Amino acid sequence: MTQPTDKPADSSALGPIPKAVINRLSLYLRELQRLVRDGSETTSSTQLGKLLEFTDAQVRKDLAYFGQFGYPGIGYRCSELITRIKEILGTNQRWPIAMVGLGNLGRALLGYRGFTHQGFEVACVFDVDDAKVNRQFEDIPVYHLDRIVEIVPKLGIRLAIIAVPAPAAQKVADALVAAGIQGILNFAPVTITVPRHVNLEGVDLAIELEQLSFAIVNIQWRQS
Amino acid sequence: MTQPTDKPADSSALGPIPKAVINRLSLYLRELQRLVRDGSETTSSTQLGKLLEFTDAQVRKDLAYFGQFGYPGIGYRCSELITRIKEILGTNQRWPIAMVGLGNLGRALLGYRGFTHQGFEVACVFDVDDAKVNRQFEDIPVYHLDRIVEIVPKLGIRLAIIAVPAPAAQKVADALVAAGIQGILNFAPVTITVPRHVNLEGVDLAIELEQLSFAIVNIQWRQS
Repeated sequence: MTQPTDKPADSSALGPIPKAVINRLSLYLRELQRLVRDGSETTSSTQLGKLLEFTDAQVRKDLAYFGQFGYPGIGYRCSELITRIKEILGTNQRWPIAMVGLGNLGRALLGYRGFTHQGFEVACVFDVDDAKVNRQFEDIPVYHLDRIVEIVPKLGIRLAIIAVPAPAAQKVADALVAAGIQGILNFAPVTITVPRHVNLEGVDLAIELEQLSFAIVNIQWRQS
Repeated sequence: MTQPTDKPADSSALGPIPKAVINRLSLYLRELQRLVRDGSETTSSTQLGKLLEFTDAQVRKDLAYFGQFGYPGIGYRCSELITRIKEILGTNQRWPIAMVGLGNLGRALLGYRGFTHQGFEVACVFDVDDAKVNRQFEDIPVYHLDRIVEIVPKLGIRLAIIAVPAPAAQKVADALVAAGIQGILNFAPVTITVPRHVNLEGVDLAIELEQLSFAIVNIQWRQS
């Protein structure tokens, strides 16, 4: 639910970049990183496509939004393409993150750290529980929610994760916006609204599950 | 990353239903449920659109894939539209879920329960840790991973959540497929592959964050 990007990110003549393309860039990046770990120096749109079950034309079209990355007779140089995709995604820099909510979900996200290897790192946590604030949790400082507007700019934080119960989510989002946050990943199972200049991604686990239940109950049409 | 639905779910002449439409159905359902909680009996495409920052034409077009739901001079009857959307999404029935992995993430998902009110309920958990298996966790039975193929069909489970570390995810997915699972929500930060008849949704938190970092670093183009 990121605000739509109305303009392309470069001078490509292909027009605005669909959100799904940015999503696939992340997938290409994962596969390229895996290829490098496995010792590959080069790859091709065919190989990348096969790894992700996309056509090679899809891979080439997606990358063409951002420039020409292939070499005749070689294909893509993995490490070069990784560098370029990271530049495009902005993850060639570190992104300190403010996490709001240190309940089960917040603690799981901190323990999970499935995103730290991509440059995202929780720099501080906010909560309202006096038993949790003004101490460290796994080496990360925990502050009272009241201090968002003070702490967030001081640490140069632009991204936040909301991991609070649904009824508190909008109030937390408002506080984050007031603190100058530019992007919010919302885990609370509720729709929140933010000003247009703030980017919002929602993670509603029920929505993912509903995609699956829809696909299962409608399988007779898919296969007919 | 659900397998694409090649055919529409009903005899609508509008063609195949894009995944994004199913996604928005979930959002409409959330807002309708909220409207009913707030005492509203009817709504309109304009109101639904405004709540979600979509145009009213978008709302009408999305719903038109599935039939005619509005009444002239009234709009939509909330509870009737809720019933119909639940039928379409398949959530007019209960969906018992098998969760694999009872680490931080698995425990958080069990504690979170942001999806139980939509009909999804974790019916059993699988893990490989002898200290965890053959007991209950929050009233949910925990079995050894080796017993997936025995337990899953016995409980009539068609949906599973993978919440194990990345290196174990593919092996777990293979076991779930062997057990007859039809839909998998994968939280492990790795690409897994499943046969075409199995539906797969991946939740990679870094991908969501990369959408945000992309939007932030490219804001100059968006606003130009």
